[in-house]
Amino acid sequence: MSFPHVPAPDAAVRREAVARHGQLTKPLGALGRLEELGVWVAACQGQCPPKPFARPRVVVFAGDHGVARNGVSAYPSEVTAQMVGNFLTGGAAINVLAATAGATVRVVDMAVDTGAESGMPEQVTAHKVRRSSGSIDREDALTDDEVNAAIAAGRAIADEEVDAGADLLIAGDMGIGNTTPASVLIAALSGAEPVAVVGRGTGIDDAGWMRKAAAIRDGLRRARKVSGDPVALLRTSAGADIAAMAAFLAQAAVRRTPVILDGLVSGAAALVAEELAPGAAKWWVAGHKSVEPAHALVLEQLDLTPILDLDLRLGEGTGAVAALPLLTMATRVLAEMATFADAGVSGREAPLPGDDPEA
Amino acid sequence: MSFPHVPAPDAAVRREAVARHGQLTKPLGALGRLEELGVWVAACQGQCPPKPFARPRVVVFAGDHGVARNGVSAYPSEVTAQMVGNFLTGGAAINVLAATAGATVRVVDMAVDTGAESGMPEQVTAHKVRRSSGSIDREDALTDDEVNAAIAAGRAIADEEVDAGADLLIAGDMGIGNTTPASVLIAALSGAEPVAVVGRGTGIDDAGWMRKAAAIRDGLRRARKVSGDPVALLRTSAGADIAAMAAFLAQAAVRRTPVILDGLVSGAAALVAEELAPGAAKWWVAGHKSVEPAHALVLEQLDLTPILDLDLRLGEGTGAVAALPLLTMATRVLAEMATFADAGVSGREAPLPGDDPEA
Repeated sequence: MSFPHVPAPDAAVRREAVARHGQLTKPLGALGRLEELGVWVAACQGQCPPKPFARPRVVVFAGDHGVARNGVSAYPSEVTAQMVGNFLTGGAAINVLAATAGATVRVVDMAVDTGAESGMPEQVTAHKVRRSSGSIDREDALTDDEVNAAIAAGRAIADEEVDAGADLLIAGDMGIGNTTPASVLIAALSGAEPVAVVGRGTGIDDAGWMRKAAAIRDGLRRARKVSGDPVALLRTSAGADIAAMAAFLAQAAVRRTPVILDGLVSGAAALVAEELAPGAAKWWVAGHKSVEPAHALVLEQLDLTPILDLDLRLGEGTGAVAALPLLTMATRVLAEMATFADAGVSGREAPLPGDDPEA
Repeated sequence: MSFPHVPAPDAAVRREAVARHGQLTKPLGALGRLEELGVWVAACQGQCPPKPFARPRVVVFAGDHGVARNGVSAYPSEVTAQMVGNFLTGGAAINVLAATAGATVRVVDMAVDTGAESGMPEQVTAHKVRRSSGSIDREDALTDDEVNAAIAAGRAIADEEVDAGADLLIAGDMGIGNTTPASVLIAALSGAEPVAVVGRGTGIDDAGWMRKAAAIRDGLRRARKVSGDPVALLRTSAGADIAAMAAFLAQAAVRRTPVILDGLVSGAAALVAEELAPGAAKWWVAGHKSVEPAHALVLEQLDLTPILDLDLRLGEGTGAVAALPLLTMATRVLAEMATFADAGVSGREAPLPGDDPEA
């Protein structure tokens, strides 16, 4: 169950990439955050210049949540399975954004509340742990066996993807009600009060917000008792989809594969993943800052500065994929730009006093 | 010389696009700024769903500036011509970013300080107005004939690009010393004090900053006298590259073609363009927020919210092109996502009280 030691990205290559930025035909630092991102990709790949991503891959973890019966979402639970179908036919936001960014999308049913009658393809359900989850405000989300199965599944999925050539991973989420367990996990690991983590999710009204706040408050009471043990926390408060996502993010780091994190649910899984495999966060960048209030706690806790801030709150991996072209640009700048020497461009000079501007 | 009336983007199509967002398989508003951007593209194109851009096009306006002799840049003026060569061989940052974003790059020599001996291709120099410009701290940048030629060139270049099928335009800049005239133009049109607009440009040291501040102060004294007349302002304080860029941005709006603005120099040209052709700003979005302090004044004056904030300060159009994939995503979301009806996904419901979460 325990994860191997997580190596750090390559510090020598990082220095090499910083030095290369000083030789490219632009003032040093003029590409700002894009320069830092390129340096990080080089350090993750262990080579400078880094290679443009050959196979950026999104895995959407789908699952239902027992707590959704408390009326914490604006949508009925049946939407989870319907959206899995929508991902498979390419009609969801993540499909469109990924196609633009040059990424491909895989969806895995970890805990959708459907049985064999759903007709979901075997490759989607191969890692399924159970239908839905326990209602985390008053019972554990999973049994011991289920949480172990979900963690093993998340690791296996990361291994499958890396072995198939994925060189950048994104974990997306789909599950009606899933911002409730995500908010509980974040509050449990950041020490925040319930009211500080309750967001509008898909867009609940005030009455829904109050029901969600109550569910988070009750869920947090149960979560706090096990917040020092990440596996127990996933069992108590996550669900198989988020547990698998946490293991996937940890295993990506074990496999030295860079990750773009998405928003709230991905962030909650990331907080747990850093507990499961300390140092994993060095392999992640934050794609964006979500509208959800608890997401700011994730970014602070993991010391990550989001690339985008576009008021997104959809999940599915959309906020991460939206940032992918910028990471691709950052990588290609190091790989493809000419140096001053190559291009015969003069470098900096000590500025000349010129024609006496004070005259 | 005067520009025709600028039409507004199509308000009826805008409403149609907003309504379409409510039918797509995501909570309304969950894609935040991407939804607004998609609506804007639809309104600019006058069709919903909008079409993905077929030919996004960057035009880099290159020119030298007499004021560079005052030691206001960290690089020598010869770099302008060298960088034009670098654009032509594809080694500059804008080439790499544009290739990632699916845009093509054209460079036009409006006022590079080289003559026929430079061997620049005819298509680069076809619109050239002169070598360099007058030093704007003590003389006019251009003559009457030159400013008229530069404005005519910018309009002609926009027409050439739109006639060749460009459906999204970006104006980039290249010119050692060009942040000095850009800062003067912005101060003149926003009423700011010189010290509020002096930035580090390519990365000048403190002594260079003081020389630049003095040049801007002296330039602004001359610019303020003509700040109510945009053509006179361009003649006095711009240079042929920035004058052509302003005309290009205005003409893009006349031709109903959306534009992503870049940073400081593009922003200065945009402020003048809005004076030349009132209403043009409705056809523009701000790609990013530059590190340069005067750029914030541009955004405020034009009431534009930048898409990115990544500490960029390179110019060339890089901050605009960096935002292009997000605009493409925003467009493709409206064009390609499934509706709730198409995908058989249930819509919102009044949240159910469920199993009494307060128990």
